[in-house]
Amino acid sequence: MTRIGVVGGGQLARMMMPASIEIGFELCVFSESSDSSAKLATTHVGDYTDVNQLIEFAKDVDVLTFDHEHVSLVHLQRLRDGGLAVRPSPEALALTQNKITMRRRLAELDIPQPRWAVVERRSNSNEAVEIVGGFPCVAKKPVGGYDGKGVRVVNSLEDCKDWIREGEVLLEELVPFVRELSQLSARRPGGQWSPWAVVETRQDGGVCVEVIAGAADADGKVSESAYDIAERIAHGIDVVGVLAVELFETADGQVLVNELAMRPHNSGHVLTELSRTSQFEQHLRAVADVPLGATDFVAPFGVMANVFGEVSLEAQSLAWESFPQAKIHSYQKAPRSGRKAGHVVVIGADLDTVLGQAREARDIVQGSS
Amino acid sequence: MTRIGVVGGGQLARMMMPASIEIGFELCVFSESSDSSAKLATTHVGDYTDVNQLIEFAKDVDVLTFDHEHVSLVHLQRLRDGGLAVRPSPEALALTQNKITMRRRLAELDIPQPRWAVVERRSNSNEAVEIVGGFPCVAKKPVGGYDGKGVRVVNSLEDCKDWIREGEVLLEELVPFVRELSQLSARRPGGQWSPWAVVETRQDGGVCVEVIAGAADADGKVSESAYDIAERIAHGIDVVGVLAVELFETADGQVLVNELAMRPHNSGHVLTELSRTSQFEQHLRAVADVPLGATDFVAPFGVMANVFGEVSLEAQSLAWESFPQAKIHSYQKAPRSGRKAGHVVVIGADLDTVLGQAREARDIVQGSS
Repeated sequence: MTRIGVVGGGQLARMMMPASIEIGFELCVFSESSDSSAKLATTHVGDYTDVNQLIEFAKDVDVLTFDHEHVSLVHLQRLRDGGLAVRPSPEALALTQNKITMRRRLAELDIPQPRWAVVERRSNSNEAVEIVGGFPCVAKKPVGGYDGKGVRVVNSLEDCKDWIREGEVLLEELVPFVRELSQLSARRPGGQWSPWAVVETRQDGGVCVEVIAGAADADGKVSESAYDIAERIAHGIDVVGVLAVELFETADGQVLVNELAMRPHNSGHVLTELSRTSQFEQHLRAVADVPLGATDFVAPFGVMANVFGEVSLEAQSLAWESFPQAKIHSYQKAPRSGRKAGHVVVIGADLDTVLGQAREARDIVQGSS
Repeated sequence: MTRIGVVGGGQLARMMMPASIEIGFELCVFSESSDSSAKLATTHVGDYTDVNQLIEFAKDVDVLTFDHEHVSLVHLQRLRDGGLAVRPSPEALALTQNKITMRRRLAELDIPQPRWAVVERRSNSNEAVEIVGGFPCVAKKPVGGYDGKGVRVVNSLEDCKDWIREGEVLLEELVPFVRELSQLSARRPGGQWSPWAVVETRQDGGVCVEVIAGAADADGKVSESAYDIAERIAHGIDVVGVLAVELFETADGQVLVNELAMRPHNSGHVLTELSRTSQFEQHLRAVADVPLGATDFVAPFGVMANVFGEVSLEAQSLAWESFPQAKIHSYQKAPRSGRKAGHVVVIGADLDTVLGQAREARDIVQGSS
């Protein structure tokens, strides 16, 4: 049996549990609290910033992976030096912890990305602004942002002077995208790499609200570009596990990298019902270094709609009354406004139907219909 | 949150866990040992024949259901009298605990079944043998049989005189069946009932080895009969949860009831990948009294092949190398010859292909290829 340790007890760790139960992996979760979303698989409750607790946890596992990207790289290097398989590696994870590190590395790999530059207090900021095409542009804190936090559209450097006062700030051109996409794939240590078909993501205020899989790509060129980019990044940074590459698609068919994640990702939740192999199963198989599963879809289309705030069984039941085909996932998190609390997936042969059903079911679960 | 208590820590309880995690039910398992197949969800380890332990366990759950049908009906009645929802009910479960009780009740409901009679030491056994059409016929111990145990084809009553010495024995005609089928469905307390398409089961020595879903039924009459029988039984005995009706199909298109189970059943494992709603999810939804899920298939065909003895990750990996489309489930049970240790499912558009892949993958996992 392979004991897979997961740092972080959020919904991603929770959703690794079904696949681990089916295959027969033993999942061991390091949670922040005893009432985490992944409490059933939790073997250690504590503070993941404490290296001694990480070392203690790691004693009982064969491989270490992650529900989030916030674990100290220095601590992970120390665990690896002690002989533990850390997947993805600290070197790969570095790209998810610092957006400037990511931009530099993607540039080295000659991956298409938005024009970017770094500003700091003493730098020539005019030059940086010129590189990204002037204002408005996007300013990003290099560390710690998520779900729209740490990202601003700015019309002058005044708009992010508070961040510049703290350190380096990443400027990026404001890409006039027509769609946002996510290319999910997984890679094993030896290099086996397997992608899913690219999906479309729709955001509201920087937060993913819907994902559409199977969406039209008339000539297949966008899919091909997305696939090529993900494959080059995966091998280029030697990632192990699921890699989510968030992309901008422009009106002229360019595909540019927006963000990276090296774990199962919100944009891949639709794959649990739509693909033969879910992203959670594939991540576990990749980090355990066993052959990857088939990634073809069992239906032409799938839609995932996030539920924010709370998912109650009463609301699930109401939605199921009208939509027995809807899968309604609950993360069993304490209710909090704006918090991702669950999601709805519907798959089927007609996109308009599937999209309508997923949205209506989501609205019922959210109590907004 | 609904806390669903399951008596029995076998693979059926184990396979309820993924669905409970996705929906957000809390599963509490009463296991025979701390190392059971369902140990992750185990909240009580003990002896389910001890009513005081059952009462203690039941304090923490909203509804009680089962991984097996061996719990004392008297104990269950006592729990129900104490206010606990017991689903299915002791009255329904009675039919699964005693095959003579089942035959009598199905006769009252006018359900087509093999000719049957009861023999005991002091009865007129010639009359009973005549009713079932003479020898050879089938003799069954009314209580405790499973997987071919407690069932014999007999050529005279001498062949089962050891059982007759112990008490009543059920005689049944030896049905000249062309196929064995299983009609799975689920029912809620209020009467909502939802079937899956009937599946074909193939046995070896009384043990299920393969299940074929989507199998041809040229004019639909067999499916219709199976559906009608299951619906009448479900409502007739007021079952709650999954009901598996095992059937004989004869050359002239008759469909006769062989056995009943009132829980997820080996013949329904293929539905986890093939149906929008697995039998495990549906069972939990039914006993929790929330709306049932859609039961249509996501592919034309599905094949499930049982793995006996042991499932190792090494063998799974070997099978995945050749068959990335195969789902290989491990129950994490201690290896034992002949014991169901896991199963393989493949779904797809061509039955011969799917059947071949499932069998080859199974052979690899079992180390017999």
